[in-house]
Amino acid sequence: MTDKTSIILENIQNRKSVRNFTDEPVAKEILLTLLKAGMAAPSARNRQPLAFVAVTDRLLLDGMGEGLPYTKMLFKAGACIVVCGDSKVDLQQGANDLWYQDAAAATENILLAIEAMGLGGVWSALYPYPEREGHVRMMLKLPPEVTPFSIVPVGHPAGSDQPKDKFRAEKIHWEHW
Amino acid sequence: MTDKTSIILENIQNRKSVRNFTDEPVAKEILLTLLKAGMAAPSARNRQPLAFVAVTDRLLLDGMGEGLPYTKMLFKAGACIVVCGDSKVDLQQGANDLWYQDAAAATENILLAIEAMGLGGVWSALYPYPEREGHVRMMLKLPPEVTPFSIVPVGHPAGSDQPKDKFRAEKIHWEHW
Repeated sequence: MTDKTSIILENIQNRKSVRNFTDEPVAKEILLTLLKAGMAAPSARNRQPLAFVAVTDRLLLDGMGEGLPYTKMLFKAGACIVVCGDSKVDLQQGANDLWYQDAAAATENILLAIEAMGLGGVWSALYPYPEREGHVRMMLKLPPEVTPFSIVPVGHPAGSDQPKDKFRAEKIHWEHW
Repeated sequence: MTDKTSIILENIQNRKSVRNFTDEPVAKEILLTLLKAGMAAPSARNRQPLAFVAVTDRLLLDGMGEGLPYTKMLFKAGACIVVCGDSKVDLQQGANDLWYQDAAAATENILLAIEAMGLGGVWSALYPYPEREGHVRMMLKLPPEVTPFSIVPVGHPAGSDQPKDKFRAEKIHWEHW
């Protein structure tokens, strides 16, 4: 295995959920790098039905945190990225029953890029929970055709969260079940 | 940006759908590395409701390809990985409406690991298509509580597939829509 391969595989293993952040802000340039990683995710039939909202405004971060029971880490995060499905793309191209799979892949890419940059973040689900979706829709002024899928608070890690070892040999079946 | 960071971000950008493969087999050790990457994906409430089937048997690969209209690349692939949801985990822990998001993140991790290892692969959706699910269920003898989510043919790339540049600045909204 080459050094490059090892670095990439280690980053996948080192990705972790980080929920505590220092006060240091997250630069727009960093967010742009994360968004580029998100957009590079695979997209079923290459439809690319996603859109992204990057937030650094303290009032918006706190306001979203107030309405999202499981995303209180927004109060400490310097920024967040909201990954959305944009059904306008589908109205042009027919039904898309895979948009949320694209959105999940994009969210994972963003988390891996966060880890690669020495930052911390955590995946918090909005879809398929109408109350969470509605709160974020209101705060971020999302139009009706846009569905918020996930919210990823991002910041500079405080503390030392460790990745979980989730390898379980018994979950692998060779050739068939 | 450090060299390590660049290597990881470049791998995310270089990931591509590879559908043509040489005859070279895919070693079990390689598949195990890919599976480890898949299992390292984030899991909602850390439920880890996934299971994986790794296939190298020519008859099984071809048999799955025959029944899957959009996954004919299985005929040339040296192996494939089927990412599954295992609802037995949920029966123990209550309803899980996020298993497919975990499965998508695991699939993306596997694709990124494939790219990192100089191999090729492609994400082909099984869920939510009952006919595709049923065919794979039959071929791989999946029990009723296991739902095949995606199938990733893997092999040594033939030809020179290039990644798409999917960056679109207009898909980014700063602070709010």
